[in-house]
Amino acid sequence: MPPPDRPDEFSLIAQVFAPLAAEASGAFGLTDDAAIFAPTEGMEIVLTVDAIVEGVHFLPSDPADSIARKLLRVNLSDLAAKGATPRGYLLVTSWRPDTPLAWIESFARGLADDQRTFGLSLWGGDTVSTSGPLNFSLTAIGEVPRGQMVRRSGAHVGDDLYVTGTIGDAALGLLAAQGRLAGPAEDAAWLADRYRLPQPRNALGPRLPGLAHAGLDVSDGLMADLRHLCETSGVGAQVETVLVPLSKAAARAVAAEPVRLETVLTGGDDYEILFAAPVEKAAEIALAAAETGVPITRIGRIGMSGEGLAVIDANGRPLGLKQLGFRHF
Amino acid sequence: MPPPDRPDEFSLIAQVFAPLAAEASGAFGLTDDAAIFAPTEGMEIVLTVDAIVEGVHFLPSDPADSIARKLLRVNLSDLAAKGATPRGYLLVTSWRPDTPLAWIESFARGLADDQRTFGLSLWGGDTVSTSGPLNFSLTAIGEVPRGQMVRRSGAHVGDDLYVTGTIGDAALGLLAAQGRLAGPAEDAAWLADRYRLPQPRNALGPRLPGLAHAGLDVSDGLMADLRHLCETSGVGAQVETVLVPLSKAAARAVAAEPVRLETVLTGGDDYEILFAAPVEKAAEIALAAAETGVPITRIGRIGMSGEGLAVIDANGRPLGLKQLGFRHF
Repeated sequence: MPPPDRPDEFSLIAQVFAPLAAEASGAFGLTDDAAIFAPTEGMEIVLTVDAIVEGVHFLPSDPADSIARKLLRVNLSDLAAKGATPRGYLLVTSWRPDTPLAWIESFARGLADDQRTFGLSLWGGDTVSTSGPLNFSLTAIGEVPRGQMVRRSGAHVGDDLYVTGTIGDAALGLLAAQGRLAGPAEDAAWLADRYRLPQPRNALGPRLPGLAHAGLDVSDGLMADLRHLCETSGVGAQVETVLVPLSKAAARAVAAEPVRLETVLTGGDDYEILFAAPVEKAAEIALAAAETGVPITRIGRIGMSGEGLAVIDANGRPLGLKQLGFRHF
Repeated sequence: MPPPDRPDEFSLIAQVFAPLAAEASGAFGLTDDAAIFAPTEGMEIVLTVDAIVEGVHFLPSDPADSIARKLLRVNLSDLAAKGATPRGYLLVTSWRPDTPLAWIESFARGLADDQRTFGLSLWGGDTVSTSGPLNFSLTAIGEVPRGQMVRRSGAHVGDDLYVTGTIGDAALGLLAAQGRLAGPAEDAAWLADRYRLPQPRNALGPRLPGLAHAGLDVSDGLMADLRHLCETSGVGAQVETVLVPLSKAAARAVAAEPVRLETVLTGGDDYEILFAAPVEKAAEIALAAAETGVPITRIGRIGMSGEGLAVIDANGRPLGLKQLGFRHF
């Protein structure tokens, strides 16, 4: 039985989730069985979905609002990397009978905050009960000019390779949150926050079609996601470690423990965008970075498939990386 | 750890699920981070999502292929009732480490069979692991002529009230599957099958825009869903029990135990379409039934809100229904 303060499924939707759908006319206030959406003239829809499970992707003690925001943001990050503008999302929630109403309300508040930040609305969903771990999935819908979604495939030999923001903060932040990172307490707190709340690059995303040949967001780790891009595009790549942008906190962590460079290059959850673009787009890319306020850094180049994936260290020597999520091919 | 025969997540997607996406160009063979879709000229997209949880919506002993088909079909039923033509779906699966590969393959075969039957494709999804009950969600995407989705709202006073197919088979079938229904064994088997595998009315669905003022699929039970339609439309309704279409097996069950009429009227999982349409559309509705092979039966009429929801029995007297999922208003 739900706790005494928990409204039934219909009331929960009406009271807690319907306000999140108030600004989307095609969501009908969550009073219908489906939502409608008509893409803007000349655009097509982009769909992506991610699920998270208690005990696997988040801990029972994590704040409900930050769980919800992370779920929304990992999907927004996919839309950004694909060049799409976010429009709406569908949400599936599995609640245990003893999940308190206050927890569910906090979850919804996290979504409300991020909807305002990123300019999208709840369109629909489903609410079920479970006896097991909490389980959430979110389908995000965006739109992109027809035929111009940024794909994993399409990188050309000779393309420059770029990333947004800084790399490795989230992986170092997870270590910091677990008390396993050397260094000053303020660095640990800053890095842990980068782990807990991704900052998807939706300000930049819609500028990428026409600039990038290929791209994806860095979620599995820089080298693993570069491998995805290279395998799908049928190319190789060379990354120079001295070019990989580090935050001050990450740079201090690597200086203190040089082995952390491997954490930076192979750790996950960055939610930055990795993309390949032709050399002649460099000036336009710098302009897009300046206009959107999203830092973009060249970290290497695309090579032929036979060259494989090479990481060149500060002395110009190939670096061996043995971490999970990375393999030579 | 997964069982020795279970491929990792990437291989599972490539081997078992990518074949389901082979015919959708916008799914990119499940090798990208998102799918694209451009609605046909003059159409808009319709989105709906449903989730199912082991131990709540299905049993651990249920066949994997029928679990998958039911999940797809309950979503197809929503699209049909809304007047939409199915195009694609996104699938989220949560597997336990010990879920056998053969079970997952059977799940995928169920989807493959129904994709062919209903003419849609897998566009994308997410695969996560869980330590708890299996948990699946499916987002179905269809398209409908712009502005013509059949809504829950929009029923007019004086409209005729129709249902497709026969009502109550699934609720009686659940009783039969539990050995709680009197009657011949062949009726029990037939009814149980109606419970296990919904037959969504997608052949009829796209004919409804322009005919129906309002509609939805019967999933919570005829009277509960009629209440949803009436509340959203701000109307009342009168249903005559003698008009409600029963299968031969259901008719025999009600004849044997008259209390089963209440099961028929209030039980769930019919996945037939309930809709309201103006009286002058009767001939066109009969034509749509004949041309699509989907039986359509008039079961009553829409009245004023103040009349509430009335059920009239064979003697012309109002019937009191006390089942859950039904309340007078």
